[in-house]
Amino acid sequence: MKAFQIVAPRETSLRDVPVPSPGPSDVLVEVAAAGVCHSDLHLAHARALPYELPLTLGHELAGRVVAVGDAVTDRTVGEQVVVYLCWGCGECRACLGGAENYCLAHHDDSVPGPGMGRHGGMADYAVVPARHAVPLGDLDPVAAAPLADAALTPYHAVDRARPHLGEGSTALVIGVGGLGNLAVQILAATTGARVLAVDTDRSRLELAATHGAHEALVSSEDTAADVAELTAGLGVDVVLDFVGAQATLDLAAAAVTTGGRISISGLAAGRLPLLAGPPPYGLPWGVSVVKPYAGSRADLEAVLDLAHAGAIQVPVEVHALPDAAAVLERLEAGLVQGRAVLVPDRP
Amino acid sequence: MKAFQIVAPRETSLRDVPVPSPGPSDVLVEVAAAGVCHSDLHLAHARALPYELPLTLGHELAGRVVAVGDAVTDRTVGEQVVVYLCWGCGECRACLGGAENYCLAHHDDSVPGPGMGRHGGMADYAVVPARHAVPLGDLDPVAAAPLADAALTPYHAVDRARPHLGEGSTALVIGVGGLGNLAVQILAATTGARVLAVDTDRSRLELAATHGAHEALVSSEDTAADVAELTAGLGVDVVLDFVGAQATLDLAAAAVTTGGRISISGLAAGRLPLLAGPPPYGLPWGVSVVKPYAGSRADLEAVLDLAHAGAIQVPVEVHALPDAAAVLERLEAGLVQGRAVLVPDRP
Amino acid sequence: MKAFQIVAPRETSLRDVPVPSPGPSDVLVEVAAAGVCHSDLHLAHARALPYELPLTLGHELAGRVVAVGDAVTDRTVGEQVVVYLCWGCGECRACLGGAENYCLAHHDDSVPGPGMGRHGGMADYAVVPARHAVPLGDLDPVAAAPLADAALTPYHAVDRARPHLGEGSTALVIGVGGLGNLAVQILAATTGARVLAVDTDRSRLELAATHGAHEALVSSEDTAADVAELTAGLGVDVVLDFVGAQATLDLAAAAVTTGGRISISGLAAGRLPLLAGPPPYGLPWGVSVVKPYAGSRADLEAVLDLAHAGAIQVPVEVHALPDAAAVLERLEAGLVQGRAVLVPDRP
Amino acid sequence: MKAFQIVAPRETSLRDVPVPSPGPSDVLVEVAAAGVCHSDLHLAHARALPYELPLTLGHELAGRVVAVGDAVTDRTVGEQVVVYLCWGCGECRACLGGAENYCLAHHDDSVPGPGMGRHGGMADYAVVPARHAVPLGDLDPVAAAPLADAALTPYHAVDRARPHLGEGSTALVIGVGGLGNLAVQILAATTGARVLAVDTDRSRLELAATHGAHEALVSSEDTAADVAELTAGLGVDVVLDFVGAQATLDLAAAAVTTGGRISISGLAAGRLPLLAGPPPYGLPWGVSVVKPYAGSRADLEAVLDLAHAGAIQVPVEVHALPDAAAVLERLEAGLVQGRAVLVPDRP
Repeated sequence: MKAFQIVAPRETSLRDVPVPSPGPSDVLVEVAAAGVCHSDLHLAHARALPYELPLTLGHELAGRVVAVGDAVTDRTVGEQVVVYLCWGCGECRACLGGAENYCLAHHDDSVPGPGMGRHGGMADYAVVPARHAVPLGDLDPVAAAPLADAALTPYHAVDRARPHLGEGSTALVIGVGGLGNLAVQILAATTGARVLAVDTDRSRLELAATHGAHEALVSSEDTAADVAELTAGLGVDVVLDFVGAQATLDLAAAAVTTGGRISISGLAAGRLPLLAGPPPYGLPWGVSVVKPYAGSRADLEAVLDLAHAGAIQVPVEVHALPDAAAVLERLEAGLVQGRAVLVPDRP
Repeated sequence: MKAFQIVAPRETSLRDVPVPSPGPSDVLVEVAAAGVCHSDLHLAHARALPYELPLTLGHELAGRVVAVGDAVTDRTVGEQVVVYLCWGCGECRACLGGAENYCLAHHDDSVPGPGMGRHGGMADYAVVPARHAVPLGDLDPVAAAPLADAALTPYHAVDRARPHLGEGSTALVIGVGGLGNLAVQILAATTGARVLAVDTDRSRLELAATHGAHEALVSSEDTAADVAELTAGLGVDVVLDFVGAQATLDLAAAAVTTGGRISISGLAAGRLPLLAGPPPYGLPWGVSVVKPYAGSRADLEAVLDLAHAGAIQVPVEVHALPDAAAVLERLEAGLVQGRAVLVPDRP
Repeated sequence: MKAFQIVAPRETSLRDVPVPSPGPSDVLVEVAAAGVCHSDLHLAHARALPYELPLTLGHELAGRVVAVGDAVTDRTVGEQVVVYLCWGCGECRACLGGAENYCLAHHDDSVPGPGMGRHGGMADYAVVPARHAVPLGDLDPVAAAPLADAALTPYHAVDRARPHLGEGSTALVIGVGGLGNLAVQILAATTGARVLAVDTDRSRLELAATHGAHEALVSSEDTAADVAELTAGLGVDVVLDFVGAQATLDLAAAAVTTGGRISISGLAAGRLPLLAGPPPYGLPWGVSVVKPYAGSRADLEAVLDLAHAGAIQVPVEVHALPDAAAVLERLEAGLVQGRAVLVPDRP
Repeated sequence: MKAFQIVAPRETSLRDVPVPSPGPSDVLVEVAAAGVCHSDLHLAHARALPYELPLTLGHELAGRVVAVGDAVTDRTVGEQVVVYLCWGCGECRACLGGAENYCLAHHDDSVPGPGMGRHGGMADYAVVPARHAVPLGDLDPVAAAPLADAALTPYHAVDRARPHLGEGSTALVIGVGGLGNLAVQILAATTGARVLAVDTDRSRLELAATHGAHEALVSSEDTAADVAELTAGLGVDVVLDFVGAQATLDLAAAAVTTGGRISISGLAAGRLPLLAGPPPYGLPWGVSVVKPYAGSRADLEAVLDLAHAGAIQVPVEVHALPDAAAVLERLEAGLVQGRAVLVPDRP
C-alpha cells in the first residue's frame, strides 16, 4: 500500500509498504481521509524527532473497519470510525479520570498517537487500537476526519474555560483560521458568551462573523484599546489564543479581566509576560493561564454530537494522497482554505 | 488617638489624629492588634501610591466594636471582630458570586481595604463597614489579627488548587516563612496531599516539618532534581510559590507535572517562562498558572473555623504601636519570627 | 397609597395605607409593575401564615427609585430597578457564598422577601433594601417584573443541573406553562441539551415548540414509554418537574437515566418514590434529586443578561392594581396567558 | 478447583470446577482472599436472579497474576492485584468520563462484575479483564481484598459529597458497622468535616470514635433532637445513610440542613419522604439526595493511596474458603467483626 512517511529528519516520501496486520486488541482501518495539520509541517521540518523512523504521518483519520483482532469485541468489520488521537497508557491517574490527553506516562513529550510515534492515516490502511476507533454513525468520513483534531482541540480549550463562559461573559478568539474558526462555532453553539474575533485577515473575520462572532476586529496596534472599549473597560473573561506569537500573547495579557482565563493553543513560541507582583506588573489578579492539549475521549464524543446536530462543520478541500508533499507546501504557503484532507487513490 | 501613617511617599509618621466617627453602615473598632506585613513595607517604600495621603497603615486588624452606625443591625457594641480586607463594590459579578477579592470595579488595582486606600488598623481605633467586621467568638484578637491576611491568602491559594490536591497528590511549597508556613499547615489540615517544603533557611524548614511538611528541601541547584526523584520523575501536582523570584518560578516550571497547577502568591517580580509551544518549550501540557489575591469572605470563615479547631496558628511577636517604624525595619532586616503585631499603648 | 394585602388568613383587601419611609439602607421604589404568581394564591388561601399581618403581597416587582436612605451610596433617585426576592441574612455560609436563596438563618421556612414576610410590590410604593434593588438598564419594567421569579426560578433549576446538560444530553421539562416555558427558553439559550416538553395542554406544547423544545409530548399513560423510545431506551439526563404532582414525579422516576438528575420545582405535594435499595426498587443508581428554591443574586444577573440579549421573554397580560382580587381568581381558574402583572392606577 | 457458587435460586454449593482460561485481554488470578459482603447474602437468598447460573460469588478479591492473555501488555505474571468491581462497557458517556460504576449500557441493573453476572473470587482462581486488575504494590492481599467494595463504596459516597464537606461542615454517618466505619475513617482522613456517628450498637460507636468520629450517638427517638442541638439548630451538611431503613431515612430528612446533601448507600428498602412542596412538607429547600453505587476506578486508586498511607484499614476476620456457607450464616447472624474474608485452602 501507499504511505506518506517521514523517512529521515526533514525528508518525506510516498512509499510502498506492506499492509499492516492488526494485533489482538487492534482494528485495521481502510482510510477514507486524513487531515493535514500545521503540526504535520512541524514534524516534517524538524531537525530531530523523538520518534522511530520511518513514520507514516496523519493524526486526523477516518475510515472503515476491515479487520479486527482476536480480543476485539466492540468493533465490527464494516463500521465507519474516526480515530481518537491520544493513545494514553490507560493506567495513570489522568487516563483513569478520562483525560488521556494529559497521560502522565509521557511527561516530557506529547502522548503518542497516529502520526505521532505510531503510524498514522496518510496511507491506504492504518492499524488502530480498537478502543480508539470511535463510531461515526452516518457522518461522512471525509468531512469527519478533521474533527479528530481541528475540532477536538478548540472544543477542549472552550470546555476547560466553560466556568468563565456563562451569560454576560465575553470571549476573545485570537486567530480565526482553522482551529480558531471552530472555536467561534463551538462558543456560539455551546455557551452564552459574546464572541470577539481578532485576525489579520479580513476574509477569515467575515467567515467568523457568519459562524457566530459578534464582533470582528482586524488586528492592529489599537486592538487592546478596541477590546477595552467593547467591554466597558473591563476586559474579557476568556482569551483563546490560537496563534501564540509574542504580539498575540501581549494582546491576551492586555485584554483579560481580573479573575479571567487565558488559554494558549497556538504554538508560535511567544512568551506570556507572567510577572509575579501586583498589577500593573504582569497580569490582573486572579487570572489563570492554561496551555491545553488536544482533548479527551469524552470531548471527542461531544464534538461528534455537535457535528451530527449540524452545529459545527470543518470546511475541507480534498486532495489525493499521492499529492501529500504538494499539499504540505500549499499549507505552508497559507493557501489552504479550511482544512486539507488527503484521500487515498483507490480504484 | 495615635495612628501610624504614610504621610508622603517614602515617609511614615506616628501622628495624633481625631478618633473617627462611623458612618451609618459602619462600626467603630477599638483596635486590639494590627499585623505587620511585607506589603506594608512595599507601601512605605513606594515612590508613588495610588492612594490619598495621609493613610493609616494596617490591613490585618482585630478588636472590639465600640460604636455602630444608625443602619447597622447585625453587629453589636462589645463584640470582638476581625476585619475582612477586601472592601469590594458588592455589585459586580465577582462580588455577587462571593469573590470580593476579585471585585471588577477595580480592574487596574487591588480592591481597596483597610491600610490600602482606606485608613487601617495601626491606630487606636478604626472605622470599618459593618459587613466586613467578622465575629471572632472566643478567639484572642491579638492572635487572630494576622489571620486576616497571613492565613487568608494561603488558604485561598490552597483552596483554588483543591481539585489537584486529592489523595495521592503532591504539593510543593516554595518559601515557608510567614504565608508559606501557613500554607503547609492548611495543606496538612485540609487536603490529602503530600507536602514538600523548599526554603533557603533551615530553621524555617524545621518548623515546616513540625507543621506537617513531609519533606523539607534546602534550596539549591539540585532542588528540581530532588523533586523529580521524590516524585518518581513525575513532578508535583501543585506548586505554591510564596516568593515569586526568578529562581523560584524557574523551579516551579521545572517541578510541575503534566496537567498540574502553579499558584504564584510571591511578589518578587520574577517572570514565569510561559512559552507557547509544545514541551520542552515552556510548561508541560495542560498546566494552569494562577496569580491569586487575598481570599473571599467565605475563605475567611473557613480560616476562622480552622483557628477555632486549633488546626492552624500564626506565631506572633507582640510590639507596641508606637514602635511601628522600628518593627518595619526589623521586618525588612528579616528578624521577625512569625508575624509581628502592633498593640495600641492603652492605659 | 393603595396596597393589596392579606389582612387575615384567607382574607385579602385593597387598602389605603401610608407611603412607607425607607430606612437608612433602603430605597423607596415607585412600583411600575408587580407579577402575580401561584404562590400568591397559596398565601391568600392559607389557613395559617408564618408572617405578621397585614402583609402587602407581590414578590415580583420593578419600578423607579424615588428616594434613598442616608447610608445608600450605590443606588440613585431615578434609576429603574427590579427587586431580588431573597432577603437573606448576608452573614451565614450560604449568603457569603452568594446563595442567599438558601440562607441558613431561616432553616424551617423560606427566606423572607417582598410579599413573603415583608411588604411586597402590589402597591403604589415599596421599601426595598438597597442591595436588593437591581438596575434594569433599558429593560421595560412592566415586562421585567416577572423575571424576578418566573425566570429566576427556572434559570436556577437549569443552572444547578448544568453539569448534566452538555452536548448530547437530553432534558425533560414537565409542565410548560409559566415557569416551565421559561425553562425551555433557558435550556435552548444556554445549553446543548435536546429538550423534551410534556404537558396536558396542546397550546402550551405548541408554544414550547416555538421556544426551543425539540419534542412535545401530550401527557398520557404512554409518556414514559415515549421518552424511552426517544432516548434509545436510556432515559433522560435531567428531569425538570414544574408540577410536582404524584403522576409527574412517577414520570420523573421512570424517565431518568442512570446517574441523572431530577429537579423538583413544582409544589403539588406529590411524593417521589425514593426507595433505598438496588434498581428496579426506586431510582436508577447514581441519580441525584434536588428541590431548588428561587435563585441567587448572580442568577438574577444572568437572567437580566438573557433578557437584554432578547434570548428570553415572559409573555405578560397587564391589569390594574385595583383588580388584584379578580386577577387572583383568574389565575386560579387557569385563564391567565403567560404572567399577569398588576400596574398601579397612577394619574 | 473449588468454587463457592449459587447453583440455583436460594441454593449455594462448594463445587469442583475446571480452572478457567483467560481470554486474550484477561488475566488469571490465583485468589489470595475474597471478602464476604451483605450483597452476597442478598444474592444467595434471592428468589430470582438476573444472572446465568451457576455463578461463583465474590466481588471483593485480591491475589497474584499467574497467566495473561495474548493481548495483555500492562500486567505481568507474579504481580499482586486487587480487582475493580464495575466491568463497564468502556464506550458509553459514563465509562468515557471515568465513571464505569454508572455505565449506561446496563440501565435497569447494576454493572456486571465478579460475583455479579461474572464468576467471582470465592474460588481458587478467577479470570479478570486485565484492565480491571489493579496493582497492589506491597499491600497484603488478604487485608486489601475488602478495599474493593467495603472501602470503595464509602469513599465514593464521601467524594460525591465533598463540595459540602469543607471546613466548618458537619457530616452525620448513620450505621457505623462495615461501610459506615470506613466512611468515618475516610471523612477524618480527607475532609475538614466534624463527624457525628449514629448506631444502635455501642461497641461500633466506640470503634467509630477511635477512628475519628467527634460525636457518637446511640440511636433513639431523640437522635434528631440531639443532632439539632449539636448543630445549633442548623442540622448537618451531609447525611451518609448506610442502613437505608425507614427510621434512618426519616432521621436523614430531619437532620439535613437547607441546601445540604443526603447520600443513601444502605439497601434496607426504606422510603425517603421526598415531597414536592415547601418545607416543612418534605425536605428543606435546596437539599440534594443521591443514591451512589460502588465507585470509579479513580476512586479505587484513591482508596489504595489511603491504604498505603495507613490512613484507612478494614478490620478482617479470616476463614477458609470451604467454610463459605457457614460464614454467610455468621454474617446474617450479625456475628462478623469487621469484614470476613475467605482464603482458599491451598497446600
